Amino acid sequence: MKTAILTIGTEILFGQVVNTNAAFLSEQLQNIGYDVMYHYTVGDNPGRLEKLLGIAFEDCDLVLTTGGLGPTQDDLTKETICKYFGDEMVKFPEVEEWLRDLWKGTGMTWTDNNLTQAYFPSTAELLPNPRGTAPGFRLEKNGKVIMSMPGPPREMKSMFLDYVKPYLESRTDGRICYKIVRTYGIGESALETALLPLIDGQTDPTIATYCKEGECMARVTSKRKTYEEAEAAVDEMVGTVKSLVGDYVFSCDDEELVEVLGKILIENNITISVAESCTAGMFASTLCSVSGISAVFDRGLVTYSEDAKKKELGVRAETLEKYTAVSPEVAYEMVAGLAAKTGSRLCLSITGVAGPDDLSEDKPAGLAYIGLRYKGEVKVVELRTRNVDRNNNRRKMVLRMLSEAYSLVK
Amino acid sequence: MKTAILTIGTEILFGQVVNTNAAFLSEQLQNIGYDVMYHYTVGDNPGRLEKLLGIAFEDCDLVLTTGGLGPTQDDLTKETICKYFGDEMVKFPEVEEWLRDLWKGTGMTWTDNNLTQAYFPSTAELLPNPRGTAPGFRLEKNGKVIMSMPGPPREMKSMFLDYVKPYLESRTDGRICYKIVRTYGIGESALETALLPLIDGQTDPTIATYCKEGECMARVTSKRKTYEEAEAAVDEMVGTVKSLVGDYVFSCDDEELVEVLGKILIENNITISVAESCTAGMFASTLCSVSGISAVFDRGLVTYSEDAKKKELGVRAETLEKYTAVSPEVAYEMVAGLAAKTGSRLCLSITGVAGPDDLSEDKPAGLAYIGLRYKGEVKVVELRTRNVDRNNNRRKMVLRMLSEAYSLVK
Repeated sequence: MKTAILTIGTEILFGQVVNTNAAFLSEQLQNIGYDVMYHYTVGDNPGRLEKLLGIAFEDCDLVLTTGGLGPTQDDLTKETICKYFGDEMVKFPEVEEWLRDLWKGTGMTWTDNNLTQAYFPSTAELLPNPRGTAPGFRLEKNGKVIMSMPGPPREMKSMFLDYVKPYLESRTDGRICYKIVRTYGIGESALETALLPLIDGQTDPTIATYCKEGECMARVTSKRKTYEEAEAAVDEMVGTVKSLVGDYVFSCDDEELVEVLGKILIENNITISVAESCTAGMFASTLCSVSGISAVFDRGLVTYSEDAKKKELGVRAETLEKYTAVSPEVAYEMVAGLAAKTGSRLCLSITGVAGPDDLSEDKPAGLAYIGLRYKGEVKVVELRTRNVDRNNNRRKMVLRMLSEAYSLVK
Repeated sequence: MKTAILTIGTEILFGQVVNTNAAFLSEQLQNIGYDVMYHYTVGDNPGRLEKLLGIAFEDCDLVLTTGGLGPTQDDLTKETICKYFGDEMVKFPEVEEWLRDLWKGTGMTWTDNNLTQAYFPSTAELLPNPRGTAPGFRLEKNGKVIMSMPGPPREMKSMFLDYVKPYLESRTDGRICYKIVRTYGIGESALETALLPLIDGQTDPTIATYCKEGECMARVTSKRKTYEEAEAAVDEMVGTVKSLVGDYVFSCDDEELVEVLGKILIENNITISVAESCTAGMFASTLCSVSGISAVFDRGLVTYSEDAKKKELGVRAETLEKYTAVSPEVAYEMVAGLAAKTGSRLCLSITGVAGPDDLSEDKPAGLAYIGLRYKGEVKVVELRTRNVDRNNNRRKMVLRMLSEAYSLVK
């Protein structure tokens, strides 16, 4: 069923609040086979809300709203929806009773503006709100359905899961399954080119490629009668995707590269240490976002100064002088020294130019050398990222370190 | 000027991505005096996009779009906007040249679908995108203005700040000045209470307090005929704010705490080293986001294992055994050992429970001990953050380390 999500609240238009309600509802609806066509956001303004209701119902049969159900004067959602549906507002005595009981329970002073929360369109089906004071409601007319929920995410989520979702599931004709195939070491256009035979003329499952933070992925989606059928179709297509670009795939289950790497290290008890210069602890910090990594992560050394490189890792003064700190030779000595010091099974080092300024003509910002030592073998990889800014350069360097480490242990 | 924000991307309608772009743009527009009336979101679908363009321009004169500018087939924003404005797509040779140069620089293989990124409506003013491969553009007709930016937040933000905002500021009737007074060590309600005499009955300048990522700030805004008048009014009010809560203020110019700290360290040549356990390099990495910090940052040690704490920092086995790794005693020995090893003027250490699980009943997730050594004196601070999740806990710990370091050197 074609669906629109309409979030109501001036605080969203002011940018004070990020619209997480729309994201939550979208994902939920997607999973139960509803097609979300639009998100709309409007302030607490009846005229503009009414306009958007008209627009939303032009090509959608279901509209979910959040926000604007509270007792204060600027919350006029209910009245506006009521008017749009040609209904009239009436007091629901059971809600008034529930509200008065609530107030008694908390010891707060009852003020009559709370009574507005007992009024609803006369034909509304109410949606209980055990976590707040504003019930939601469902209204239907000529095949058009609106379901209104409160704005606070905690109240909205529990109302959706307990009362909205079961109703919607009882009305769907299909179930959707999607999986996200994540890759490393391949750009978006190269990924799309490789998958073009699958993308061209696709019907179901569909494939879409996209990029996020320097990493490219493909989303495979199917809609079938049952979730099981949809999942089987998706799994088959994921298999085909892997047969085309399998070398670049690290997860078919939307995991982060660092999670996948961390799991492999933990499961195989591969101890790891790292010596960082330009990334300055970002690799260690990123790796340690994985819960349980303490079982294998031994040590990180941020050897920013030349003195630190010499003292902590035994990098030789001659090497620093002859080749400078940003060189494959120094990356090599860093990782060798780290391995000798820690004995970790996997050791990484990095030295480079974080930027934003170039170090010299032949040492531009974004240049880095990554040393890796695993199973007694040492290799050094050169990385040239496009100089964007200091932190972006560093993030790309860390991503490359994760990729190289993953390549070794996968 | 009445403004609508139109975000384009199926991933938003799928709920895979929270629409932070709309929040960022809303806040920015608000600050420079534009009224955001609506947010619209639509997938990569030309028909529906065209419909929304029509709706948005019904009562808005300015529409900002994000997303859908990439090289892949589902990115059709430009063509649709071009059609809506009655223009035609032409190749911009300078963009093609720039793109081909970019590809040469990175060594990636050029594929011809990248060429679509060189096509724009013939009357478009281009908006450079130094952080990505898809330039944005501005198009105007009959007093209606559209400005299209890429979807990745990093690219969009820098394009907005560098090219969109200056243009919009040049078109407003009044001039707005706002400054953000940033504080540490004070909660939002305490900050609001302290500023209440100023907030009550305010007209211009206005003051609003808000909290983000565990840090509270006050925005002081004025709209006057000239920027200079607005700035003078804001500066006067900022002075009043400082007279009330000055002890907590670290910047009146919207700087990050880490920037302010980094500058002080560099200017005063205060060398710094850090030994991290639970934050695992996040402090070092955060501090090293400051350009030029290499002049004073000597060394970071991520001593995750007990063995590393002993070998790198000389923490005694007895101390670890008697008090456990998460204890003020270990934080003390860590920072003392670090100072002895590096001789840095400012040394920090941290040991704690990153979470998400508690270590034990009396060592809950979010508990940390921070050791500081400066001018020969050592102190240990206890921090108990509310356990949200592993990375959130770690970020709060780093923020506290920055605060404590700032308190010592300010």
